[in-house]
Amino acid sequence: MLDIERDDLQPQQLSFNAQGLMPAIIQDVETKDVLMLAWMNREALERSLQTGYTWFWSRSRGRLWQKGEESGNTQSIESVRYDCDADTLLILVRQGGDKLACHTGKPSCFYRTLN
Amino acid sequence: MLDIERDDLQPQQLSFNAQGLMPAIIQDVETKDVLMLAWMNREALERSLQTGYTWFWSRSRGRLWQKGEESGNTQSIESVRYDCDADTLLILVRQGGDKLACHTGKPSCFYRTLN
Repeated sequence: MLDIERDDLQPQQLSFNAQGLMPAIIQDVETKDVLMLAWMNREALERSLQTGYTWFWSRSRGRLWQKGEESGNTQSIESVRYDCDADTLLILVRQGGDKLACHTGKPSCFYRTLN
Repeated sequence: MLDIERDDLQPQQLSFNAQGLMPAIIQDVETKDVLMLAWMNREALERSLQTGYTWFWSRSRGRLWQKGEESGNTQSIESVRYDCDADTLLILVRQGGDKLACHTGKPSCFYRTLN
């Protein structure tokens, strides 16, 4: 069982990349399925922490978006973890709506395997 | 329960980023804990598929490395999934050694939470 430590690192101390982004792995807190990987900038992380729901930076659309803003498949945040290098987030969520995290209508974006 | 599809996409068709890299989320197939996120280039992915163990590209050291090559905490690959955009991998592994995936000696790199 993973022993999770509380730490006094502040969100401002995390390492965003040269584009000001950080990968966020989204995991279902109940099933432990990995649902998706999306990107956060500082503002997306702040909004996520303030609202308790996941917000991301869309690299293709060039804007912030809340997960589920159109589909209703929101993600309520249970826990925000960060890795040893403080450059990747692991966010445990409780899904709203139909619990279909992928825009294709699948439960997870990782629904295919390599041959 | 996630229904995983077999797909005829080939590794060569995956989307690597401008640096030739792709994030790979590593998940323990037994506990479903997310262990780490590391980066693969085409060669790392090919070696991983050929050997059945995870290989990554170290951005800091500028070379390929096999997970566990020094620590013995190897990762035997059970399944390689890719996401809807084909630009992120989710690799399910069975851990060898002491099952301590993080270089800090922790079971997972995600052992801390934000305040």
